Amino acid sequence: MSWILTAADLPDLARGATLLGTGGGGDPYIGQMLVQQVLGNGGITILDPDELADDMFVIPTAQMGAPTVMVEKIPAGTEPLAALRTLEAHLGRTAEATMPIECGGVNSMIPLIVAAESGLPVVDADGMGRAFPELSMETFAVYGVQGSPLALAGERGEHVIIDTGSDNRQMESFARAITIRLGGVGHIAEYAMTGADVRRTAIPRTLSMALALGRAIRIAREQHRSPFAALADTLSTTLYSHVRELHVGKVVDVERRTTEGFARGKALIEATDGSGDPVVIAFQNENLTAYRGEELLAIVPDLICVVDHETAEPITTEGLRYGQRVRVLGISTPDLMRTPEALDTFGPSAFGLTETFVPVETLAGRPV
Amino acid sequence: MSWILTAADLPDLARGATLLGTGGGGDPYIGQMLVQQVLGNGGITILDPDELADDMFVIPTAQMGAPTVMVEKIPAGTEPLAALRTLEAHLGRTAEATMPIECGGVNSMIPLIVAAESGLPVVDADGMGRAFPELSMETFAVYGVQGSPLALAGERGEHVIIDTGSDNRQMESFARAITIRLGGVGHIAEYAMTGADVRRTAIPRTLSMALALGRAIRIAREQHRSPFAALADTLSTTLYSHVRELHVGKVVDVERRTTEGFARGKALIEATDGSGDPVVIAFQNENLTAYRGEELLAIVPDLICVVDHETAEPITTEGLRYGQRVRVLGISTPDLMRTPEALDTFGPSAFGLTETFVPVETLAGRPV
Repeated sequence: MSWILTAADLPDLARGATLLGTGGGGDPYIGQMLVQQVLGNGGITILDPDELADDMFVIPTAQMGAPTVMVEKIPAGTEPLAALRTLEAHLGRTAEATMPIECGGVNSMIPLIVAAESGLPVVDADGMGRAFPELSMETFAVYGVQGSPLALAGERGEHVIIDTGSDNRQMESFARAITIRLGGVGHIAEYAMTGADVRRTAIPRTLSMALALGRAIRIAREQHRSPFAALADTLSTTLYSHVRELHVGKVVDVERRTTEGFARGKALIEATDGSGDPVVIAFQNENLTAYRGEELLAIVPDLICVVDHETAEPITTEGLRYGQRVRVLGISTPDLMRTPEALDTFGPSAFGLTETFVPVETLAGRPV
Repeated sequence: MSWILTAADLPDLARGATLLGTGGGGDPYIGQMLVQQVLGNGGITILDPDELADDMFVIPTAQMGAPTVMVEKIPAGTEPLAALRTLEAHLGRTAEATMPIECGGVNSMIPLIVAAESGLPVVDADGMGRAFPELSMETFAVYGVQGSPLALAGERGEHVIIDTGSDNRQMESFARAITIRLGGVGHIAEYAMTGADVRRTAIPRTLSMALALGRAIRIAREQHRSPFAALADTLSTTLYSHVRELHVGKVVDVERRTTEGFARGKALIEATDGSGDPVVIAFQNENLTAYRGEELLAIVPDLICVVDHETAEPITTEGLRYGQRVRVLGISTPDLMRTPEALDTFGPSAFGLTETFVPVETLAGRPV
């Protein structure tokens, strides 16, 4: 069912989207502020994917770049709509809705900024069902929608249109190169598609799921119940049904480099009780693997979420700091994201990892 | 006056254009082969700039990249016309002619490839009056034509449109970033302009000048006369009237790095008779400065040309080798390229050099 989102929903939505961002997808505070600034007392229509006309024309919008840069280089706010308008002009066709390409503190919000500025509705779905670092890592792509042409807008009015045909990895490479020249952050419109394409290729209802997750965590805190149980309960009826606690501990080291337009590195988390090996989480914008010594705890595309050990507030990779007390959660991805084609696009090998994908629910984490 | 260029003209044109390329602008052999392949027995109409209708629509075409890569990564030949067609589609306007953006072994030839493939004529002019390494370093830009929108085509059918408004340096930066992702060579169409703009902003008749230069050098060799005197005689009636011999010697060292999409480095040339300090030539694709010890012999935008000591065959920066016996020539640029605005765009400071421009005819080189 379609519904209206207002500014009051933003803190919960940002929290839930950041959790699904699995370390990436942008800073929740910045994302929320950007929407509030343009939304005021208005509302944004959120469309259920099942209610889209088959030929409705949808242009997703997003921010791309290294999260380490995003927190320092705040956009003017006009870039995402400029990207959408550039793509419309290039295609000679007007968008009837926008949509996120991924879940995340910023990237669940960018389409809302576009909506608040333009009056367009936002489709309740996305193309990653979480966050991934590269534009080619989309269920849209896995199931046959091409990313090109892509439009990119910079803060000083720059516009770029990239068309690499069906080669979404080359599209990613070109857009990343421009984003680096823009200082590390760019705004894009890509994967233009019809309503029928959305139903066939997108992960449905991830905006409403993020809102429900963020709300459940908040209400549990207010009622002095476990936010972790609330989180697991909320997900149990969704396509993300398995939630595992992989580790409880303290962040004792973070290595982080901003390189080639990405934030890459790893975090070392010692067990609170000092027992066993520390857990190591490797990331490229998003968390990719969690290991305790030699033992694999979870691996991409399953979600690896680092959250505050008491409040369950999600912590992004750029927000990781020495001394944080955290829990590491593993969350199973929808079946649509575990097919051989999907794993080719955003499974371990797409990140140059040699491991085979193993579902988190078959590994050692204990149910939450 | 307009004239017809045929395949028989290509070796002379390539030689002359490479000399004007002042170390850059691409390899003459490759440029020539690319045109021959498509031209066959046909002819290309070369338009005199004075004969263009004021509202004639001209789209220049070129190759960009590091010369060190260009000699190894030969284009398919279809990319320059693809770039022109992409820009036409974006602008909604059809080109009535193409034009070089610089002189050089490849970049005087690229518009001829476009012409042979499309039937378009080529304007006898360019925007550098030599070669420079960056797309912003154009007399077009100095005198008010903007480079954007620029279209770039890759060998696998990729298309990119870049629009940075009046910021030609940002356009250069974006196009360079894409070119690097293409492996170091890209093909472009940019600085779309009218016939009136050409007359106001271009260096006129550089194609016919290159052809005359190449021909004069060849004929002098055939008649056992000095090709250097022939070269100086040919230039004496043009806008490039001062030709100076800066040095005669042997290349004893070449440092060359392909970095950030450019070939940068320096060459050390010892005097043939062993007297005095060696001459050092610094380059970024093109030769930038020539020094003997502390003494400046010539500096950009004047032309610094390294040629074979006997035949006057020009040697590009990527063609420099240990042991070559060479003469170093300094050639004065047209007044249009020495104004304060022009020097801001492609004088020493545009390359991060701290020297002030000094006309080569006031320095120590001896007249040829």
